[in-house]
Amino acid sequence: MSQAPDSTAIAAADIAAAAGRIAGDIRRTPLLDLPGWGCLKLEMLQVAGSFKPRGAFNRMRALGVPPAGVIAASGGNHGAAVAAAAASLGVPAEIFVPEIAAEAKRARIRGFGARLIVGGATYDEARQASEARAAETGALMVHAYDQPEVLAGQGTVALEWQEQVPGLTHLLIAVGGGGLLGGIAAWHAATGVSLVAVEPEGCPGLHAALAAGRPVPAPVGGLAADSLGARQVGRLMFPIVARLAARGRLDSVLVADDAIRAAQRALWDHARLVAEPGGAAALAALLSGAWTPPPGARVGVLVCGANTDPGAVG
Amino acid sequence: MSQAPDSTAIAAADIAAAAGRIAGDIRRTPLLDLPGWGCLKLEMLQVAGSFKPRGAFNRMRALGVPPAGVIAASGGNHGAAVAAAAASLGVPAEIFVPEIAAEAKRARIRGFGARLIVGGATYDEARQASEARAAETGALMVHAYDQPEVLAGQGTVALEWQEQVPGLTHLLIAVGGGGLLGGIAAWHAATGVSLVAVEPEGCPGLHAALAAGRPVPAPVGGLAADSLGARQVGRLMFPIVARLAARGRLDSVLVADDAIRAAQRALWDHARLVAEPGGAAALAALLSGAWTPPPGARVGVLVCGANTDPGAVG
Repeated sequence: MSQAPDSTAIAAADIAAAAGRIAGDIRRTPLLDLPGWGCLKLEMLQVAGSFKPRGAFNRMRALGVPPAGVIAASGGNHGAAVAAAAASLGVPAEIFVPEIAAEAKRARIRGFGARLIVGGATYDEARQASEARAAETGALMVHAYDQPEVLAGQGTVALEWQEQVPGLTHLLIAVGGGGLLGGIAAWHAATGVSLVAVEPEGCPGLHAALAAGRPVPAPVGGLAADSLGARQVGRLMFPIVARLAARGRLDSVLVADDAIRAAQRALWDHARLVAEPGGAAALAALLSGAWTPPPGARVGVLVCGANTDPGAVG
Repeated sequence: MSQAPDSTAIAAADIAAAAGRIAGDIRRTPLLDLPGWGCLKLEMLQVAGSFKPRGAFNRMRALGVPPAGVIAASGGNHGAAVAAAAASLGVPAEIFVPEIAAEAKRARIRGFGARLIVGGATYDEARQASEARAAETGALMVHAYDQPEVLAGQGTVALEWQEQVPGLTHLLIAVGGGGLLGGIAAWHAATGVSLVAVEPEGCPGLHAALAAGRPVPAPVGGLAADSLGARQVGRLMFPIVARLAARGRLDSVLVADDAIRAAQRALWDHARLVAEPGGAAALAALLSGAWTPPPGARVGVLVCGANTDPGAVG
């Protein structure tokens, strides 16, 4: 991988290198085949309850962590992932959260031993405060979705899935800032596997970007905004994903909040699995009919997070 | 397997036959390796939320279901399993529950399309009512734990686990009536794998039986009584398990309700998994230190049920 921070070239080799680098840090998450649903990858059983530690560990291991530690801005899954990764590697972490971050999520970040700082009213203010702090201390900044090592780390989920079950033809993936989708698209750039990018109607950042031909600001709202609510998709993921869409190997679909809630409930009723709204969005596209598999498709569904109140799904 | 209903001879071949018979009916449940905990088998992701359909499907397929359908007595996991198996095979089911059965569990049994009958004040009365009804209609009775086909079906979880990960040396298994432990012990009678039978302090049926040299009535109480609260362990499982204990390959341990609750919480906190009290009991023995792995052990833990309010674990 090029070390230039604005590189958009994430190669399969970068992802394979990331997989080797983080193999001892993350969990090889299991699969569950369900008739009519396809092959679920249970990535919400990952360390810290979402796919995010893959990218966080990869950036920290690839670049090395300075004595000042790591810094991230996030009141959600990314903050928990960076805090967990720092605890695991024995380095200090500062996590900047906006004032609106829920106390339960703050407690979880503190629970991993990170220093938590309220960095402003909004996520953008928290991010700016975190960048100022990183410039001051020299700590390593781990972005939620727009750094090459983060994309390559998230892409390891696709490599691992392919090793576990070769032959899937279509993968359904939820999109927020798009680091996960970008990494998976980079892995499958030349494999022939098709991707279905799923966004909640309230957070249509990729839809807007594909229409505009570049990442543009989009609304952030609805049930899954806490995990999929990026103001715009990343500039690293966009060209990778747009290239796949231009070749007819990526569909971008939207799902309603009711469909997400129904998918959460179906996961619990049929398989005793808990997913947060963003984690159930990909399955929602399939169960609601927002996306229909073509004949002969072998479908994979990534269930990517479960950092929610479990009582909300029953 | 001998067709004599009182046979105690469950051979590995019976379990292999059962596995072939039910392969299309049940889920091959996934594993999750967690450092310090061992290899969890996530059997609570099985059809109907527990291991119970393995035995129910095996008995129904091995003996065939008469036009009158199937009958079972249970307000819990077994009732749901038989109802789900009957729905899957397209045959009628009557499930007898005691008056104390919770409305949520009744709704679940009805949700699978079974006819639900309140058969008396206690489980024993419901069981007697179900036997009288079976004698009247000719329906196939599926016992919760004391029929050879039920033991052989439950034993398939051990066969499947060994195929998935050879080399485990110790398996921790929760015990209620003991159909699950009996089936697993039958599979491992000659493999060299050791078993750890885990009971809640409130339901020490196997402890009492091993002390007495035969199944004897024991108290039923505490947090996990709804799934592990058999009045005494089965007469089919007992000789199989006692033989393994006599050879030093089976430990019987008790866990406190607090340890069970802590294990449920640990599963959620560390892996976003939900287990009911009975489903978390085996892990509780490990986490609480009620059982300590010997040096070099490769430990497997069966998480065997999740039919609970998910909000109770968070």
